[in-house]
Amino acid sequence: MKIITISREFGSGGRELGKRLADQLEFAYYDREIITEIAGKNELDEGYVTSILERGISHKFPVTFGRTFSYSAAAQQNATKLLVAQQRIIKELAAQGNCVIVGRSANIILHEYNPLNLFVYADMNSKIQRCRDRATEGEILNDNELRKKIKQVDAGRARYHELLTNLKWGAKEGYHLCINTTNLQIKELTPFVANYVNYRFGGDIK
Amino acid sequence: MKIITISREFGSGGRELGKRLADQLEFAYYDREIITEIAGKNELDEGYVTSILERGISHKFPVTFGRTFSYSAAAQQNATKLLVAQQRIIKELAAQGNCVIVGRSANIILHEYNPLNLFVYADMNSKIQRCRDRATEGEILNDNELRKKIKQVDAGRARYHELLTNLKWGAKEGYHLCINTTNLQIKELTPFVANYVNYRFGGDIK
Repeated sequence: MKIITISREFGSGGRELGKRLADQLEFAYYDREIITEIAGKNELDEGYVTSILERGISHKFPVTFGRTFSYSAAAQQNATKLLVAQQRIIKELAAQGNCVIVGRSANIILHEYNPLNLFVYADMNSKIQRCRDRATEGEILNDNELRKKIKQVDAGRARYHELLTNLKWGAKEGYHLCINTTNLQIKELTPFVANYVNYRFGGDIK
Repeated sequence: MKIITISREFGSGGRELGKRLADQLEFAYYDREIITEIAGKNELDEGYVTSILERGISHKFPVTFGRTFSYSAAAQQNATKLLVAQQRIIKELAAQGNCVIVGRSANIILHEYNPLNLFVYADMNSKIQRCRDRATEGEILNDNELRKKIKQVDAGRARYHELLTNLKWGAKEGYHLCINTTNLQIKELTPFVANYVNYRFGGDIK
């Protein structure tokens, strides 16, 4: 089983890299599909699942923080249940065959599968520009708002990661390769990463 | 001018990667050559230059630490003089043409040349094994001694780096690509890195 996990800073292009990599390697690709699966299995609305998972992760998650919190017992139970469901589904998807999984700390959850773990990052200006380029209409944020959003999203990812492991999110020691995408076109970067993946999985460089 | 700088943890195989990369790309390679050049220009013994540079960097370097120190004014002056000479020589070498420079914070010193900056790292067991494999006779250290040596050498590198810049040595933000060499053969890794370098310098992947 060849599994690639992609952890990424918001706006670094990691999701696009994962998608293109999966296309080029003919691997399955999982990202939002995980949410869809959780929602389906639990007969819940996808938006609801997303919001619970994000709230459970982004705010006061009782297991780690252990402080008083203004967070209802029911919401807490829901978040815990969905986090567990997410872990189970990630493992089920991984068991189906070669795949690229973006985010959701799959590098930690799938540790026993020896995944190839990539981390994608970029400098702040580059991330702001990338967010701006892919913004849909009606989603116009200024640079300060984007900077704030990027930091918030990444802080949530770091907290979720640190629920699961002692390794710090984004610390290079936890990854096989850390790729700085500042000023790069993801499309042009992809073949190089695909070569690296082939090398790491024991194949030749194409 | 195409300049590659390689920063590396002691025992990670970064030096070997730099040498092989230079061979494959037909770039000049500089590492100890820098010491030879400093020694030659200053009519000094190479061992002396090495020891002064390492002592100047590894121990109480007055410019940064600003504490009391048991370090003679003359030794201090020598260290400063040789550090400045090292910076000048690195710039002179870079100006001569395409090259790979290993260590000596060349990524910071050559900032104006827009070098491609790689960081090479590995987990501790892998570094200990690599040190053991390349040890010469009469240089037998046990694992604890090797661990201590690795940490000491890297601490010296970090201190020198942080004399020159606010960026933390080894923090991924300061590099274009961070490569984990744990359990890898550098010889097999090299073609992949060469491909990446060609891509970053605007060529095709070979």
